[in-house]
Amino acid sequence: MDMTEKCDGKCGSCTKVDECDDPRKEQYLEQQMLKTRMSKIKHKIAVISGKGGVGKSTVTVNLAMSFAMHGYANSVGILDADIHGPSVPKMLGLRGQKLQAIPIGIFPVMGPLGIKVVSMDFLLSSDDAPVVWRGPLKMKAIKQFLSDITWGELEFLFIDLPPGTGDEPLSVMQLIPDLDGVIIVTIPSEVSQVVVRKAVTFARQLGVPTIGIIENMSGFVCPKCGTETSIFKTGGGRKIAQDMSVPFLGSIPIDPEICRDSDNGMPFITEHTDSPATKAFSEIVKKIQQFLEDPVLLQRMAVKRKK
Amino acid sequence: MDMTEKCDGKCGSCTKVDECDDPRKEQYLEQQMLKTRMSKIKHKIAVISGKGGVGKSTVTVNLAMSFAMHGYANSVGILDADIHGPSVPKMLGLRGQKLQAIPIGIFPVMGPLGIKVVSMDFLLSSDDAPVVWRGPLKMKAIKQFLSDITWGELEFLFIDLPPGTGDEPLSVMQLIPDLDGVIIVTIPSEVSQVVVRKAVTFARQLGVPTIGIIENMSGFVCPKCGTETSIFKTGGGRKIAQDMSVPFLGSIPIDPEICRDSDNGMPFITEHTDSPATKAFSEIVKKIQQFLEDPVLLQRMAVKRKK
Repeated sequence: MDMTEKCDGKCGSCTKVDECDDPRKEQYLEQQMLKTRMSKIKHKIAVISGKGGVGKSTVTVNLAMSFAMHGYANSVGILDADIHGPSVPKMLGLRGQKLQAIPIGIFPVMGPLGIKVVSMDFLLSSDDAPVVWRGPLKMKAIKQFLSDITWGELEFLFIDLPPGTGDEPLSVMQLIPDLDGVIIVTIPSEVSQVVVRKAVTFARQLGVPTIGIIENMSGFVCPKCGTETSIFKTGGGRKIAQDMSVPFLGSIPIDPEICRDSDNGMPFITEHTDSPATKAFSEIVKKIQQFLEDPVLLQRMAVKRKK
Repeated sequence: MDMTEKCDGKCGSCTKVDECDDPRKEQYLEQQMLKTRMSKIKHKIAVISGKGGVGKSTVTVNLAMSFAMHGYANSVGILDADIHGPSVPKMLGLRGQKLQAIPIGIFPVMGPLGIKVVSMDFLLSSDDAPVVWRGPLKMKAIKQFLSDITWGELEFLFIDLPPGTGDEPLSVMQLIPDLDGVIIVTIPSEVSQVVVRKAVTFARQLGVPTIGIIENMSGFVCPKCGTETSIFKTGGGRKIAQDMSVPFLGSIPIDPEICRDSDNGMPFITEHTDSPATKAFSEIVKKIQQFLEDPVLLQRMAVKRKK
């Protein structure tokens, strides 16, 4: 029996939803709230990886900025779903800010170009405070981030997930059934490839489309002599994409400026518009746009939304 | 009431442990088994980080090899506690191997120099299979890795934990109360520092000593012209160590050979004995040895073990 479908205020034990004391009511209302909030966001995209430290947050932040810069200012949101290691606020220069809780709702922190950001970091009392939470609490937090925050009307919501295929990614995929798809970030090393293949299978098992794979930290060009060194090898991302029949979105070279920009709270695509990394990133964004405009996908999403 | 203390076969409802049907018996036996297994391992050290991709597994594998090479062959174990993204087997050239389950017990996979390795990777049917598990299952798996595997007498057990301060690190710290300490790995970037500070606080809150911080990927020297570029900045690890009053163990420079060695299943300290990375690593190992030989610490550990 689907409890949430049953408890609609017409179960016979009450006549009005606000008078109902059925224990299922809370769950029902929560789910309705989640559905309502999410229905106002046109595209929801999760950024995942198998392995940590591959640049997921950097990709998320720069993707959001890229869309905000090209016609979607004030229409982009980022959910930093990394409960233990939130880094989106630092990368957007938003550290120390707090979510705004006022009588009409809880509001995201407003970043550059009106990007709405929600992160565990905005709830912590101190910089050093770790979030020592097991899975069920993390699931609850993510659910609340999605349902209790007044996201408003958005064109895009990018969700930065922690590495792995555990509680947080699973929660997000289950809570947002009409997720457009996942973007998988990897570095080229074989060690990373082994783990990233699992992420592709994970998305497949959960029935979420893979928008494509991005290879990050792909070769380093010495700023003095121009020699290119493949610190983490190159081509690993394309190889997995081919092996697993998912689109390859592109490679982003290693650039010390990216780290510096992230540390300074500035997305690299706005700070270094002519760098090879920014150019590579623009191509990646184009491919994501093409995916989102695909009529087959649009139709499928419309059907999912109606449900 | 501490159930495990009560259920000792003398609770009154039975006269022999093997006749007891108290539901607490299983838990009691499990804990006794864990205690027995762990009591045979002299030093247990966890390698943690706040952020992923900082080289935790690389550090773990090379630490284990380093001790195995210097007097402790056949006396070192590695528990790869990264359930979603196990990479230790790949780094030691052990992929495709399986744990040996024979009537007298389940045995670790034997790596180079007799290093005993246990990893989720040895239980998976295929390379692409993700482990889509929530927290409680992961806790159970780690508990079994520690208690059900015949580790035997060991001088050192290194535990490679996934990033963050969630289920896996929490489980390990709770399951092994006499952990010698944690080694925290970071990269120098500020974004990483923010997260690593949380790891230091986490260890502190759980009462586990911090052996020290290792800064990995600290500057890259162009193999052609010799110019050093700080891809992820430098000095971040030392800064956190100072700020938080924990020992700084050393910096390991970025070296493309490290990635290549890891991909080839060879620890870099045995493959490139003269590289700056290997030299830096040797210094780190010395400091860890000093920590372990510290009589104050030894005394404290002895008191803990007696309990």
